[in-house]
Amino acid sequence: MSSIRHALSIKREDDFAQWYQEVISAADMAEESGVRGCMVIKPWGYGIWERMQYLLDQRIKATGHDNVYFPLFIPLSNFEREAEHVDGFAKEMAVVTHHRLIPGEKGGLIPDPEAKLEEPLVVRPTSETIFGDAMSRWIQSWRDLPLRLNQWANVVRWEMRTRMFLRTSEFLWQEGHTAHADDIDAREHTLRMLEVYRSFAEDVLAMPVVAGEKPENERFPGAEETWSIEAMMQDGKALQAGTSHYLGTNFSKAADISYQDREGQQQLCHTTSWGVSTRLVGGLIMTHGDDDGLRVPPSIAPWQVIICPMLRDKQEDEALLRYCENLRAAIASDHVMDEPIRVLLDRKPGKAAAKRWDWVRKGAPIIIEVGGRDLASGTVTVIRRDRLWGVDGKLAVQGPSHQDCTASIGALLRSIQRNLYDRAHERRERNIRRDIETMEDLEAFFSSDQRYPGWVEVQWSRPTGEGLAKVVEKLKSLKLTFRNVPTDAKDAGGTCIFTGDPAVERIYVARAY
Amino acid sequence: MSSIRHALSIKREDDFAQWYQEVISAADMAEESGVRGCMVIKPWGYGIWERMQYLLDQRIKATGHDNVYFPLFIPLSNFEREAEHVDGFAKEMAVVTHHRLIPGEKGGLIPDPEAKLEEPLVVRPTSETIFGDAMSRWIQSWRDLPLRLNQWANVVRWEMRTRMFLRTSEFLWQEGHTAHADDIDAREHTLRMLEVYRSFAEDVLAMPVVAGEKPENERFPGAEETWSIEAMMQDGKALQAGTSHYLGTNFSKAADISYQDREGQQQLCHTTSWGVSTRLVGGLIMTHGDDDGLRVPPSIAPWQVIICPMLRDKQEDEALLRYCENLRAAIASDHVMDEPIRVLLDRKPGKAAAKRWDWVRKGAPIIIEVGGRDLASGTVTVIRRDRLWGVDGKLAVQGPSHQDCTASIGALLRSIQRNLYDRAHERRERNIRRDIETMEDLEAFFSSDQRYPGWVEVQWSRPTGEGLAKVVEKLKSLKLTFRNVPTDAKDAGGTCIFTGDPAVERIYVARAY
Repeated sequence: MSSIRHALSIKREDDFAQWYQEVISAADMAEESGVRGCMVIKPWGYGIWERMQYLLDQRIKATGHDNVYFPLFIPLSNFEREAEHVDGFAKEMAVVTHHRLIPGEKGGLIPDPEAKLEEPLVVRPTSETIFGDAMSRWIQSWRDLPLRLNQWANVVRWEMRTRMFLRTSEFLWQEGHTAHADDIDAREHTLRMLEVYRSFAEDVLAMPVVAGEKPENERFPGAEETWSIEAMMQDGKALQAGTSHYLGTNFSKAADISYQDREGQQQLCHTTSWGVSTRLVGGLIMTHGDDDGLRVPPSIAPWQVIICPMLRDKQEDEALLRYCENLRAAIASDHVMDEPIRVLLDRKPGKAAAKRWDWVRKGAPIIIEVGGRDLASGTVTVIRRDRLWGVDGKLAVQGPSHQDCTASIGALLRSIQRNLYDRAHERRERNIRRDIETMEDLEAFFSSDQRYPGWVEVQWSRPTGEGLAKVVEKLKSLKLTFRNVPTDAKDAGGTCIFTGDPAVERIYVARAY
Repeated sequence: MSSIRHALSIKREDDFAQWYQEVISAADMAEESGVRGCMVIKPWGYGIWERMQYLLDQRIKATGHDNVYFPLFIPLSNFEREAEHVDGFAKEMAVVTHHRLIPGEKGGLIPDPEAKLEEPLVVRPTSETIFGDAMSRWIQSWRDLPLRLNQWANVVRWEMRTRMFLRTSEFLWQEGHTAHADDIDAREHTLRMLEVYRSFAEDVLAMPVVAGEKPENERFPGAEETWSIEAMMQDGKALQAGTSHYLGTNFSKAADISYQDREGQQQLCHTTSWGVSTRLVGGLIMTHGDDDGLRVPPSIAPWQVIICPMLRDKQEDEALLRYCENLRAAIASDHVMDEPIRVLLDRKPGKAAAKRWDWVRKGAPIIIEVGGRDLASGTVTVIRRDRLWGVDGKLAVQGPSHQDCTASIGALLRSIQRNLYDRAHERRERNIRRDIETMEDLEAFFSSDQRYPGWVEVQWSRPTGEGLAKVVEKLKSLKLTFRNVPTDAKDAGGTCIFTGDPAVERIYVARAY
């Protein structure tokens, strides 16, 4: 294995952005589509997203939500109702203006001028306004509350600078929309969904995150509060991996989402919205990838175990394949994390080393190699992709006739899941500075020649309005942003490093995607 | 129950189209969205679609396909490459022309003239052309074949006359796209997927279908052969419920999808595509609905069993709910059709009769009512929605302390599934005429005062081109269409009723959706 050890041409430490692109291509996850800012998600990338959908959907349903489907198109007039919301999105939307094509004078097709829409339609960048419309019809009395809906859908935001999975013009996501009787219930729900995201990111994606509130300047257009989970990538940058918004009565006022309370009074609902997207796949790559490619946590690996028979295009192959098929069936009949183990017997022709490296680059958690000689000796070679076994992550294991091999696969998968989380968590903690107490130190830290400087957690006084704007401007000049005010931070005390006022809480500052 | 027996205001026999709309609303499945031709799919309707997705997806994966995701937008130039294809679709597409909005002079927002796209983008009506693009990049040699891909997505076709689930401007579907080394393999695959659809429709949806080939005039734009499954609705009309296309080398030529064969020669691939959509939900309603609302086959019911405690807003409710929760857990721990039974305890307040009728209209297969008196006597009332037990479908069953009740639920669900299929199949066969041998008899049959005349299977000579066009025109004047040439028809003999030429096969003629 060592002879062609580096599966990628670029290492993380040399050029993280290039490395990221190379992993996507080397793991065959996605590619540019030729349509501006849109990508094609290939089977391995989509398989990971499908697993995310499947597991997150269970958690969303378990917290009382029903899935629904709303139209892709939103009439402009509908979109305009919430002023901040439309300001936030109007700059980057795809607009449908015609519903027919006709042959043009110069050949080819052109939009038919006679089929111009009376009112342009916007391709949804998010669906608060159109859910709001329905909620105002569906909610009559307190008995109808809370109303908890979720949608899995594609959305479009016309991004100028795109990067696969992280920022594409079209992306896939889920968007939750709920309506509640009062602010207490709505705020509680906002945090409940934040916690669903936190535990999903950490327990399923093995991606440690900080859950907290975004400062005012980072709020979703139209929200009263925006909460996020933030993950640290291996280049020290932050990735906002999910958001949960308390929308107050802003959208309720705009769409008249109201109900009759127990006393017969008409009241406005308080609404929330929250979402995660295919961006999580990008976060996964930058959290777990190494210089050999992707590493997929077993929970969300489309295939957790790959069996690679070392085929030699000879008659012996038949016995080898039979042996491997028995092994596959034995492993598949076992369960891990409440599901049958997902094991694939890779029957494709090709050299053993090439096949192994295909799966190493894709990041399959366990690869089992079986050759003709192994067949005789009753052993197989097990490779754990997280390399906890020496440099190659290889170990000769007694073969499938021996109970040990199959029985240990489940334990091994659990161990890989835990190990990926632990390493990411350890790396994050190593790269957070919590001892910076002045603006000078902050500047010095981020201006140092440390390539990937990580995050800084500082005390601040939570300025608002113009005061906040000044601070944000200053950070921007250092290419820095506020991430969030963590829910589990130590108490603040002393002085805000930005304003000199008494500090009231702690906040994360970092470069970000 | 008999006091308010008719849950709907319209009966099937009085106005089938109105009845259909009423079922959708009474079962709370979907509603008009206010966006032209688009609907909102509500939890019960979407839950049925999710079950369809889940079960069909397994079958698509089991036949060797990988799921992927391609862009929503297709550049016009890309779409134009296959001439028949673009002719077939250009008339009904949503066209994106701008990517930004700005404030207009009269207030409100308008598309920004400075953000006009150089090349308009089409919102995909189907994705052959964009899959073809990728296939030409991904396929190099015979080793890459067959390439079998599938996508779950939304598509848009600008329909002038829409009807919920059956014909909407935006709809949800899956579209499979495959490439093969030769016509034999591609044709085989076209029929393999037709068979997947047939068995899915019959075994899962309990919807009997006829699988067969569409005549030339009904082919998908760009296809060499189009095959379909056709279901008979309760008004005797045909619903095309799924299609599978052999595309020959038409799209391969347009997008240069070629490969090097074993002899080193460059060859064009042969491609297929096939899809089913949310239209199936409409088919389900019109196959199984009755004058009380929808009836959902247990396989795809979001909830198969509803437990309705007859709550009285008194202290006794607590014991009743505890009893019902035990019953729920006991049923949920059982399996049917390889999955845990999906059972819901409906804790909502409200009168027992009102709650029962909510679930009758939604078509939950089994409703179990438990009242305070039942608690004492150890019985529950079981209602089977297919009404095989007398007029109300009710039966008092020994309670959950008795093994019989829970153990029989699985058997009951299987029986309902079978019964719904049998009734639909029997009705279809009763409404197919196979003895019509002249055009006069055909006309007479469809001009009779029979409200819902059903289908006719006749012999024909498979005319093509102008000959076929004439026949189609004649049928059109009778509001009739060719459905398909069934794969399992009896041999033809004698004379074509349309042309007088010797007959070569049999074909279905019917009114259709």
